[in-house]
Amino acid sequence: MRDLRQTTVIGLGLLGGSITLAALRCFPKVKVVGYTHRGVTRRKAQQLAAAAEIVDDIRMSVSGADLVILATPIRTFEQTFGQIADALPKGCIVTDIGSTKVLPHRWAAKRLPKTVHYIGSHPIAGSEQRGIEFARDDLFDQATCILTTTKATNSDALQSLRGFWSKLGCSVKLMTPSEHDRVFAGISHLPHVVASALINANDSSTLKFAGKGFIDTSRIASGPTNIWADVLLTNADNTTKGIDKVIAELLKLKKAIRSEDERQVEKLLKSARDRRAELIDYKIKEKEIIL
Amino acid sequence: MRDLRQTTVIGLGLLGGSITLAALRCFPKVKVVGYTHRGVTRRKAQQLAAAAEIVDDIRMSVSGADLVILATPIRTFEQTFGQIADALPKGCIVTDIGSTKVLPHRWAAKRLPKTVHYIGSHPIAGSEQRGIEFARDDLFDQATCILTTTKATNSDALQSLRGFWSKLGCSVKLMTPSEHDRVFAGISHLPHVVASALINANDSSTLKFAGKGFIDTSRIASGPTNIWADVLLTNADNTTKGIDKVIAELLKLKKAIRSEDERQVEKLLKSARDRRAELIDYKIKEKEIIL
Repeated sequence: MRDLRQTTVIGLGLLGGSITLAALRCFPKVKVVGYTHRGVTRRKAQQLAAAAEIVDDIRMSVSGADLVILATPIRTFEQTFGQIADALPKGCIVTDIGSTKVLPHRWAAKRLPKTVHYIGSHPIAGSEQRGIEFARDDLFDQATCILTTTKATNSDALQSLRGFWSKLGCSVKLMTPSEHDRVFAGISHLPHVVASALINANDSSTLKFAGKGFIDTSRIASGPTNIWADVLLTNADNTTKGIDKVIAELLKLKKAIRSEDERQVEKLLKSARDRRAELIDYKIKEKEIIL
Repeated sequence: MRDLRQTTVIGLGLLGGSITLAALRCFPKVKVVGYTHRGVTRRKAQQLAAAAEIVDDIRMSVSGADLVILATPIRTFEQTFGQIADALPKGCIVTDIGSTKVLPHRWAAKRLPKTVHYIGSHPIAGSEQRGIEFARDDLFDQATCILTTTKATNSDALQSLRGFWSKLGCSVKLMTPSEHDRVFAGISHLPHVVASALINANDSSTLKFAGKGFIDTSRIASGPTNIWADVLLTNADNTTKGIDKVIAELLKLKKAIRSEDERQVEKLLKSARDRRAELIDYKIKEKEIIL
């Protein structure tokens, strides 16, 4: 990213802190500014030297920035866009790293001035941990980062943002916001819902016998509750449609089991098994999984 | 197991083959006999030296055995019990390693002579692999093995069978058959159903974007289809009740998302997250997970 002089990250949790640390490492000449409203997080960020400047004034944090990255919960974005709107330099690129993209695009169109360029980002990285103390400067290395664009997206801004994430180690892909939200409902938001439902469907006396299978299947349900509530609520249509599809599949299996229809039970399990095998083959071919 | 002279394993897949290999290692003085009806598997077993004798006559395989272990699909057990019934030596212990236990107990009561002792076994071990070529003599090391008993269970036979699995490296626990099937529906059979439904609910164009979260959540759906059809069909009541519970939990989440009830969404996700954290703590305390 040729002209990047200052990048500002709003929100210094695991992801925001990892962005500032990665930017410090990958862009040694760029000024990295971090903002968080929490005093305790600012002190931790300072101890970790997570940014060149760590500030408590959100409008001041974005003044002079060429790139502003929101790394707070999704449902704070609209308000944050409003707060920073008239402090943003002209030509500035604004992005966010929320896991849903339709609403952020809508809020950006509503709240941000026409003089700045909004593009959505969704770096597929993270962990069940939370907090800047778990931030890592290589968190985005080898991750996929989806950028969401519309017909109105400025191509120079897109080029610059793509360069930023690439430099951090990401493989960048483009999607429309609605395509993104539909796809991620299926492969990310729905698994979270299903894992949570699976745990809640078991009583504690049963759970204590759980083995590796259950523990793996339910792992993602250990993600931060508020972040995930945010994701589900900002992708409500796709998520609830997905829930309906899962329920339909569960009912097919239930019916086959109830009627002792061995062929149908095997067929449904085989379909899942074959499609997962296909998925793994694809991931190996694309070198997204190294065996 | 003081008096064990011959153990016979019926069925030489991943698990059956691992039992014969482990028995050869742990009981060097015991004669280990393997039976399978498949010629190709017998030849593989011979190449791997998976047993002292590998035979093609099921009745001959059990003559002289003190311990007979069925390691074939669950729904073959009733017929197998019938085939071996009058070839079993008096006082012989008969067990199986099926993942459901109510029906095997019922079939044993119906088909086996009163002169032998049936006890159910469920060693919690395996992999997504199948076939004797993946068998390992340490597969049961540090595994839990559930033995299922009834009021009629002979205590000497139980003592002996417990000794056998302990020697193979298992931590042995006792349950009734119905308790076993209820618990395993929740923590094993239901996760399989849910993982399969999750995969089948997504189309292939969506699946290819799946990341680590989805891949972990769906891992168990890659298990052998016929074995799992067997499990679900022989634990139909518990599994279908479990499906109803998962659907109820999914509908709670759907309703909360639809009505934008942030508190309820967070509450449901938090319940799952907290209960999984409790589970992990318990597993660490019990040293079933080493961090």
